[in-house]
Amino acid sequence: MLTIKRLAIDTYPENTAFLLRRSNGYSAEQFQALRKIRVSGEGAEILASLALVDESLLLKPGEIGLGEQAFRRLGLPEGAQVAIEQARPPASLEYVRRKIDGDTLEDDEIAAIIRDIAAHRYSPMEIGAFLVACAGFMTTQETLAMTRAMAGLGNRFDWKAPLVVDKHCIGGIPGNRTSMIVVPIVAAHGLIMPKTSSRAITSPSGTADTMEVLANVDLSEDNMRAIVAREKAVLAWGGRVNLSPADDVLISVERPLRIDTFDQMVASILSKKLAAGSTHLVLDIPVGPTAKVRSQEEAVRLRKLFEHIADKLGLVTDIVITDGSQPVGNGIGPVLEARDVMAVLRNDADAPQDLRDHALFLAGRVLDFDPALRGGRGYARAMELLASGEALAAMERLIEAQGRQEIRHDPGAHVHEVRAGEDGRVTAINCQRVARIARLAGAPMDKGAGIDLLHKVGAQVRKGQSLYRIHAQSATGLGFARDLAAEDSGYEVTR
Amino acid sequence: MLTIKRLAIDTYPENTAFLLRRSNGYSAEQFQALRKIRVSGEGAEILASLALVDESLLLKPGEIGLGEQAFRRLGLPEGAQVAIEQARPPASLEYVRRKIDGDTLEDDEIAAIIRDIAAHRYSPMEIGAFLVACAGFMTTQETLAMTRAMAGLGNRFDWKAPLVVDKHCIGGIPGNRTSMIVVPIVAAHGLIMPKTSSRAITSPSGTADTMEVLANVDLSEDNMRAIVAREKAVLAWGGRVNLSPADDVLISVERPLRIDTFDQMVASILSKKLAAGSTHLVLDIPVGPTAKVRSQEEAVRLRKLFEHIADKLGLVTDIVITDGSQPVGNGIGPVLEARDVMAVLRNDADAPQDLRDHALFLAGRVLDFDPALRGGRGYARAMELLASGEALAAMERLIEAQGRQEIRHDPGAHVHEVRAGEDGRVTAINCQRVARIARLAGAPMDKGAGIDLLHKVGAQVRKGQSLYRIHAQSATGLGFARDLAAEDSGYEVTR
Repeated sequence: MLTIKRLAIDTYPENTAFLLRRSNGYSAEQFQALRKIRVSGEGAEILASLALVDESLLLKPGEIGLGEQAFRRLGLPEGAQVAIEQARPPASLEYVRRKIDGDTLEDDEIAAIIRDIAAHRYSPMEIGAFLVACAGFMTTQETLAMTRAMAGLGNRFDWKAPLVVDKHCIGGIPGNRTSMIVVPIVAAHGLIMPKTSSRAITSPSGTADTMEVLANVDLSEDNMRAIVAREKAVLAWGGRVNLSPADDVLISVERPLRIDTFDQMVASILSKKLAAGSTHLVLDIPVGPTAKVRSQEEAVRLRKLFEHIADKLGLVTDIVITDGSQPVGNGIGPVLEARDVMAVLRNDADAPQDLRDHALFLAGRVLDFDPALRGGRGYARAMELLASGEALAAMERLIEAQGRQEIRHDPGAHVHEVRAGEDGRVTAINCQRVARIARLAGAPMDKGAGIDLLHKVGAQVRKGQSLYRIHAQSATGLGFARDLAAEDSGYEVTR
Repeated sequence: MLTIKRLAIDTYPENTAFLLRRSNGYSAEQFQALRKIRVSGEGAEILASLALVDESLLLKPGEIGLGEQAFRRLGLPEGAQVAIEQARPPASLEYVRRKIDGDTLEDDEIAAIIRDIAAHRYSPMEIGAFLVACAGFMTTQETLAMTRAMAGLGNRFDWKAPLVVDKHCIGGIPGNRTSMIVVPIVAAHGLIMPKTSSRAITSPSGTADTMEVLANVDLSEDNMRAIVAREKAVLAWGGRVNLSPADDVLISVERPLRIDTFDQMVASILSKKLAAGSTHLVLDIPVGPTAKVRSQEEAVRLRKLFEHIADKLGLVTDIVITDGSQPVGNGIGPVLEARDVMAVLRNDADAPQDLRDHALFLAGRVLDFDPALRGGRGYARAMELLASGEALAAMERLIEAQGRQEIRHDPGAHVHEVRAGEDGRVTAINCQRVARIARLAGAPMDKGAGIDLLHKVGAQVRKGQSLYRIHAQSATGLGFARDLAAEDSGYEVTR
């Protein structure tokens, strides 16, 4: 038996255990080949990657060091006694190998893989191998099995209501913060809409990041239930409530490998919606030359996949294909997006019209799920709730209920204007490019960092006129973003 | 600038750098997201995975800790000053992503990937993603580009001779130690045959492991050249002389993921042969129900791929498809195999006939490359050299030249007999099963561990008669192997 020593070493996302190479308690050499060990004691166990330590600067003989992740996941206190052994690789890795060889897997084989991934029994390398093998070829049945397996792990909400609506966008369009307008409209109407959102993974802001400018989004399940009971809705960060934990692990590998297949997208989104207890979902697929989906044909193929899987899972969907040719709204980055959202809710004269239109369209489709509003009356009802100020009032109540943000966030004070090189018309804005510039400026970590678009596609501009303004909270961030914008601003201006 | 501190922490195969999370020299938080940093100073640089350390038990402010791999690969002394920055992912990762998406890559794109892999710029996760994407689909042109790129890195031998022969088996058949018989026969004839071999990766022994029972195999390039100049041949471990270093990195990921595609096999083998300076190669593809290649059709497909790629690379090949239905020879494991090899070379009456036949067949094919032996006279010449003792004498000279092994290795003293459960005939021996049992007994690390087959396919056995003997150097090893053999001995005995 070895004694646990907590080592404050962060090796996310891997579990790491540290052993002295020479010690009389065991032969560390025998563990070298396998590189993964099973650590167990008092009924708990984890698999961990092994780092061998040559000198006793970290450890005394008889101790095993656990990095932060490993210590937390094992859940035993420092000083507890544990046994170690060579980890047998999870049996489900055999299925991954068959998938690599081009086989189609059975439902229970997929489920076993997902279970082991959620339990952190796979290394990032093994998860990557599984994801790349799936990117090569995946049957609809496999995608269904994966979605179901992912939704079945972790928490699962039950709102005890026949109609729990939700709205989701596949992402990729900067500034497209419609959820924060749709949710208060739907809440004002009276449907139940407990919306959980993610933080940005590769984008300059996620709904959770932007909502956090206005209110607390880090809510417990009890919090969420109390708020939904009173306000019909909530705009919370989903990361706190452990929905589809396998998805979080998969994303930690998809992100660095930039794997973004339709199958993984469908499994990720629908497993989270199912776990969140949604019954009716409006799903937004923006299409554009620099969006995630580049053509109408692709969009239709993705829609069919979503519809098929959702149908098998008993989730009612209304999947809309929308214009994703340029960013939506003017602000990109948490503070600037929150400003746009509130301007729309307040019916300000200078509120971005495209954000308002897009949000109203989606809110209308969500309201169409209400049996009392048959015949496409949802859109008119959404307009009415926005124009009357009822949606704004609902948003204010949500902010109060979740806890109004006490820190005042302003747009970053370090500012740089990106100007037109010649007279002409804006003919295109590259979504990926402006998103990357906003991220380099510091978004979403620096809430006030980002980009404020001053002209959109179709606008006439003169040479030297400002196309957009970069905001940063540090000179370094501004420098990074400015340099990238100087290479290529993301704007096309044509005479 | 940060000061290097060497941390005796082994995180093979990754480079790991350790930074204090809070320090005034830099903001570690900014490095968290990317997880990979570039460490540079005095003209040297490496990429390393980042581990963040919360307390200063390892590091003082202003220090950067480097694990063993990172310290060695950077090559700077402790106390040297280095700068760090977020690592830009290698540009070639963009090609990997395209490969994942199903694209075919250009020669220079493949070359860029291989170069970055050999330079340790990829994480195991990224290497795994590349390999799995290649396992999904690879054109012959891509395999050729990969082989050429692999052979072009690291060392490359030039023996200044028009005919440099070589012999290679794709592996998978336990006990099949023909190279140690073929090389002395060919050397006795007078052709140049500088044979580099690998150690076992997943098998109970590689040629380098078995040869090491008799002689030193860890030879420098100068050593090898001197021995070849005098003896025409050598039987050395290839790991010392840095041939196709990308292959070694790829194997470190292929092994745990158990990726063993034809494309990778061809690229791995031919890149090493090309780098080793071989001009003429006999390649052995054993086929059998438990071999690497399971059917004649597969074998022919593999042969065609080998021929095509070798041809483009200017390597003359003679590719033979042989019987891989059961182990070759009696011993499995370094000491037991060395015993069999020497018995054949000495023309002992009880030398394993199948090993002798197989080696003679291959030696004949190698000798057929000699223009002086046209018309298939190679086989007769090989028999002559073996029967006359000239091959044995050549082997003894090689052993002396390389350095006779001073440690006397005997078969492991812990012995267990695996017995027939009933009367009958041996109808099959599972190569993978007996290999695994031999490995659990301790081979190849314990030189004397392994299996001694007492009956081969076709033999009549009586109930209780010993089928094979397990040798181990420790009671633990014997226990592991005995337990596995009790589950399934790997022998099929039919009435």
